[in-house]
Amino acid sequence: MTMLYVVIACGLLSVLYAIWATRSVLAADQGNARMQEIASAIREGAQAYLTRQYTTIAIVGIIVFIIAWWLLGASAAIGFLVGAVLSAAAGFIGMHVSVRANVRTAQASANSLAAGLDIAFKSGAITGLLVAGLALLGVSVYFWILTGPMGHGPTDRLVIDALVALGFGASLISIFARLGGGIFTKGADVGGDLVGKVEAGIPEDDPRNPATIADNVGDNVGDCAGMAADLFETYVVTVVATMVLASIFFTGEAAITLMLFPLVIGAVCVVTSIAGTFFVKLGTNNSIMGALYKGFWATALLSLIAIALVIVFWLGMGTEFQASDQTTFTGLDLLLCGVIGLAVTGLIIVITEYYTGVDYRPVRSISQASVTGHGTNVIQGLAVSLEATALPALVIIAGIIASFLLAGLFGIAIAVTTMLALAGMVVALDAFGPVTDNAGGIAEMSNLPPEVRQTTDALDAVGNTTKAVTKGYAIGSAGLGALVLFAAYTEDLKFFAANAQPGTFFDGVSVNFSLSNPYVVVGLLFGGLLPFLFGGLSMTAVGRAGSAIVEEVRRQFREKPGIMEGREKPDYGRAVDLLTRAAIREMIVPSLLPVLSPLVVFGIIYLIAGKNEAFASLGAMLLGVIVTGLFVAISMTAGGGAWDNAKKSFEDGFVDKDGTKHLKGSEAHKASVTGDTVGDPYKDTAGPAVNPMIKITNIIALLLLAVLAH
Amino acid sequence: MTMLYVVIACGLLSVLYAIWATRSVLAADQGNARMQEIASAIREGAQAYLTRQYTTIAIVGIIVFIIAWWLLGASAAIGFLVGAVLSAAAGFIGMHVSVRANVRTAQASANSLAAGLDIAFKSGAITGLLVAGLALLGVSVYFWILTGPMGHGPTDRLVIDALVALGFGASLISIFARLGGGIFTKGADVGGDLVGKVEAGIPEDDPRNPATIADNVGDNVGDCAGMAADLFETYVVTVVATMVLASIFFTGEAAITLMLFPLVIGAVCVVTSIAGTFFVKLGTNNSIMGALYKGFWATALLSLIAIALVIVFWLGMGTEFQASDQTTFTGLDLLLCGVIGLAVTGLIIVITEYYTGVDYRPVRSISQASVTGHGTNVIQGLAVSLEATALPALVIIAGIIASFLLAGLFGIAIAVTTMLALAGMVVALDAFGPVTDNAGGIAEMSNLPPEVRQTTDALDAVGNTTKAVTKGYAIGSAGLGALVLFAAYTEDLKFFAANAQPGTFFDGVSVNFSLSNPYVVVGLLFGGLLPFLFGGLSMTAVGRAGSAIVEEVRRQFREKPGIMEGREKPDYGRAVDLLTRAAIREMIVPSLLPVLSPLVVFGIIYLIAGKNEAFASLGAMLLGVIVTGLFVAISMTAGGGAWDNAKKSFEDGFVDKDGTKHLKGSEAHKASVTGDTVGDPYKDTAGPAVNPMIKITNIIALLLLAVLAH
Repeated sequence: MTMLYVVIACGLLSVLYAIWATRSVLAADQGNARMQEIASAIREGAQAYLTRQYTTIAIVGIIVFIIAWWLLGASAAIGFLVGAVLSAAAGFIGMHVSVRANVRTAQASANSLAAGLDIAFKSGAITGLLVAGLALLGVSVYFWILTGPMGHGPTDRLVIDALVALGFGASLISIFARLGGGIFTKGADVGGDLVGKVEAGIPEDDPRNPATIADNVGDNVGDCAGMAADLFETYVVTVVATMVLASIFFTGEAAITLMLFPLVIGAVCVVTSIAGTFFVKLGTNNSIMGALYKGFWATALLSLIAIALVIVFWLGMGTEFQASDQTTFTGLDLLLCGVIGLAVTGLIIVITEYYTGVDYRPVRSISQASVTGHGTNVIQGLAVSLEATALPALVIIAGIIASFLLAGLFGIAIAVTTMLALAGMVVALDAFGPVTDNAGGIAEMSNLPPEVRQTTDALDAVGNTTKAVTKGYAIGSAGLGALVLFAAYTEDLKFFAANAQPGTFFDGVSVNFSLSNPYVVVGLLFGGLLPFLFGGLSMTAVGRAGSAIVEEVRRQFREKPGIMEGREKPDYGRAVDLLTRAAIREMIVPSLLPVLSPLVVFGIIYLIAGKNEAFASLGAMLLGVIVTGLFVAISMTAGGGAWDNAKKSFEDGFVDKDGTKHLKGSEAHKASVTGDTVGDPYKDTAGPAVNPMIKITNIIALLLLAVLAH
Repeated sequence: MTMLYVVIACGLLSVLYAIWATRSVLAADQGNARMQEIASAIREGAQAYLTRQYTTIAIVGIIVFIIAWWLLGASAAIGFLVGAVLSAAAGFIGMHVSVRANVRTAQASANSLAAGLDIAFKSGAITGLLVAGLALLGVSVYFWILTGPMGHGPTDRLVIDALVALGFGASLISIFARLGGGIFTKGADVGGDLVGKVEAGIPEDDPRNPATIADNVGDNVGDCAGMAADLFETYVVTVVATMVLASIFFTGEAAITLMLFPLVIGAVCVVTSIAGTFFVKLGTNNSIMGALYKGFWATALLSLIAIALVIVFWLGMGTEFQASDQTTFTGLDLLLCGVIGLAVTGLIIVITEYYTGVDYRPVRSISQASVTGHGTNVIQGLAVSLEATALPALVIIAGIIASFLLAGLFGIAIAVTTMLALAGMVVALDAFGPVTDNAGGIAEMSNLPPEVRQTTDALDAVGNTTKAVTKGYAIGSAGLGALVLFAAYTEDLKFFAANAQPGTFFDGVSVNFSLSNPYVVVGLLFGGLLPFLFGGLSMTAVGRAGSAIVEEVRRQFREKPGIMEGREKPDYGRAVDLLTRAAIREMIVPSLLPVLSPLVVFGIIYLIAGKNEAFASLGAMLLGVIVTGLFVAISMTAGGGAWDNAKKSFEDGFVDKDGTKHLKGSEAHKASVTGDTVGDPYKDTAGPAVNPMIKITNIIALLLLAVLAH
């Protein structure tokens, strides 16, 4: 268990890095008074929203905490609390830095691209390393407290239940934060664009648009805080599921070693991620994407070496492990599974860049389709979004087969863990986006020279692709992790059934998960409908929030005719406040859908056909939600990114296949704006929220088993 | 086996009805010379397209025929031929009548709504009853030939394989016809609307638009012939799968009786469908939907009585049957399963009407969202399309559970069979749509008085909902039938494994279909990606065909400036010809996707992990394609219908929530046209083609088993 101290030390290292980087960011020049005024408006809006969001979630959280204490005891309830609080903290601190880095990035961009990139990326890296570091610390410290001072055995049910509850805490925050933040940011974006760009004919981030501060607030609460909560959850749930699997599959010393193994992978990768951040430097070709990729590939390579060293010196390359499902594998096999995890990550990045990058066929086909109008733009965008699911799915399928052949189900778990161990770096690339987006807005609103805006725009364009990449990565890990979560469920079920006292709930339970059992098909269909219904509800929510903003902005323009002439100041606060209330209100029902569905399905099938069939339907539901959720999420995030960049392709003039050049303001450009508007809630609200939705359904099912066994 | 003669007699009755109704339609007034000229242009275009389409399919068909003969022998190859030829015949004859009924409906509408409805519906009923009748005749006559004159036992593998091959023939035609017809019709629609309505500012069906004849041709080849082939296939495959299941589950006399039972249900429902057509009469309230519903509900009620009589007098209410999976049930249980099938149909109709009808929340929310622009219209449309999947899925889930509780897997099969037994009536309601759509076009182009157009528009508006209903019905039956097809696969597999000679392929095969087998998850994911990829490819195909039309029409306008002034005649033929070539070219690759995928998946997994895992992945793939396909198809067809009717709601002026009225030509109306354009390929190309795609994947898997056993 000494390795546990190493893990905790690595976790603390990430916190130290965050403190150092925060100081370095805060030391930078804040720019002129106008810039600071705008930045403080954004900061206040973001803090007000996040405080309100977390207050609302806290009410739900307290209720769940009490229920968890009552049903599962103190250690599970406290685990839930730890997961929830740390998830919220990662989001809150990330946003805290991000709303301070934005104005400094704008000011630095006035000096050079390299300086702008440096501050923006450092800000992103703080969020990234806090996500990975706090997740690691949360799991490892709580695991240490339970097994050390409190003296429980590492494989005790109490410990397992407490860790699962910790994952549940992270999941619950995550679904609300993803969805609430997503509705806020896209409500502002859709509404602001429609009434500003389309009706009033003013550019994005024009200070005359009353929704413009809300739009910038949204970048921070949605793309930064929401995304951080999402990845925090994905990280925690994957590590916990791998530990649960290790505790069930192995016995004795091997169980403890392999329970620690995912934590150790996470720990060394936190260190390599920190190292990787220093590789992000603009080369002589001034390629921003190139600079970011240098950081990513350095991290990937260093991680590979670090994991290999861990296996050589700690696990043993040739050490044989035998799982209770009769799979045997060596340390080398696990290393190869790690390589598979890294390869899946790399391939998903490459595929996502192909589908969302300006230079490739998919985005160009959408630009071309814009030439014939709004309708064909949307048709082609939808076609790309549907098609974009195929290759990532094939990569995931290949990853499942390869890691399963090497080391069985536990091999798949290690592949996903390794994939997610890079989260620090991947989140850094993503959280960099909202900072540059904000920096551009601040430059525009405070009338900085156009070169500054050009620099921030260049940084922002890269953000579109990195955002799509992170989402593909998060949902891809869910696809690959599907089997791990399902295995945790089935193995738990077997464990409880085998250890059931006569007369207790699990006595005589024997579940048939075969596809020829109709209750399995029923579960698959029921799980399959969740991402669709959830997507529909969240798209509607964004539409409603956007319409509310349109009406508010129209009202301000009508009542204060001086706004458009620059004589009167718009009431930015009202738009922020209106969206805050709308987002909080709209996030509740869709968020509860994945929380309550597993319980409802289990309850109904239990009443109709008894417990065996209820467990079968519930289990199949977990896979059903992944089978459709994977495709829904990838299609939405990739499609949205492609639409966004198709619009961007008109900014420098798009040359169509007949050689005609279409500039900004042309009919084709207007058609591309429609696609971008549609893509907004697709890629930033509905799509990414599917990922926590999948996890929470799985976690609820695991907790249900624990409750029934209690 | 005397019942088989009754079945054949009922099948012949439908042909007699079709002959009688055709005569009655052809006897009607064809209108003036201008109308006849236009109608003949549509007729020639449709015949030219269909001839070319079937010629192309014939090439694929002949290759498959030879392969089938070589691999499976003469009776299977001939079965394939029977299925293919009859499917093509149903589409061809339906279209043949439809392109003659259009002009007569236009002329009759000049007299009265009732007269227009009468001809249009009669034309639809011809297609409908030929679909059901020819499907029934094909299966029953070939079954009779095999078991009577040729002396094979009804449950012989040779007979089963021949019936499955018959289903395959129907499927293969269906996927090509659905997709080719869908690309043609929507390419014309999208392209024609964009360049006509949006750019040139001329109304739909304006004779100055060179794409207008192509648009009307498309209604016939896509919505009539394509849809007929699709439902023919659904009917045949369901009946055949139920017969296969009966032959495996039961032995002796019970096997023969229960193999005949689905045919008998089909037979009596053909008679009740014919009876139902006479209930379609305009009431005093002039409600067209009411008249159609009268016909549908009369058929449903009569069918229920007829099936009850069949069970009382032939099967026996109290007769007990015992399946080899230990399920026992009585005749009464089967009757109740039939009731469930009818209830599922009824509920899907009600739900589809809710989601696509002008008077309900979903469509009104899209109309309202159009007020704030193109973007919000599309967002809300997508939200409705996603949400619209939930209730139908729940109905299907309930249907599966209820019929399974009554009579096991065979009960589910009987529920689907009963559902599809109404196909004659349902197709009649649908095939009525393109006739009225064409009638409106002819009225417009030949300058008939506006009242005529009003009458045909009223008929056409109803067609939007009935079209959405038919698609929901077809895909719903696929969802409910999923288990039947999967059961046919697993039971076949068990049969071959149990009867394998040592050393043959099936020797020692024992497949684990449990969800905890990673190869099952791999299969689910692989199946899940097919509807997405297929949808993406077919949307792209429509976009490309539409863009080609836009360019062609722009060219004609440019080269013949007299067209817009009405001095020159556009070259309609070129647009038809261009689309014909485009549609045929574009349909090939997506159509081959579901045909080849099962073979590729089986082959790859076989090489990696051996036969057991290959059979597991292939089986799971069959369910995966249904789990995502069901939702993709419902969301596309319902969403498209809702967008279409949201556009229609502006034609009489849409009053938004602030009381402002938006008329045709307003900005809100233009936004609604964008949604309609997007919805076109969604609802008429990609969405409906998912249904034959699902079936063909399943049939190929069954055939693969037969080939491997051979």
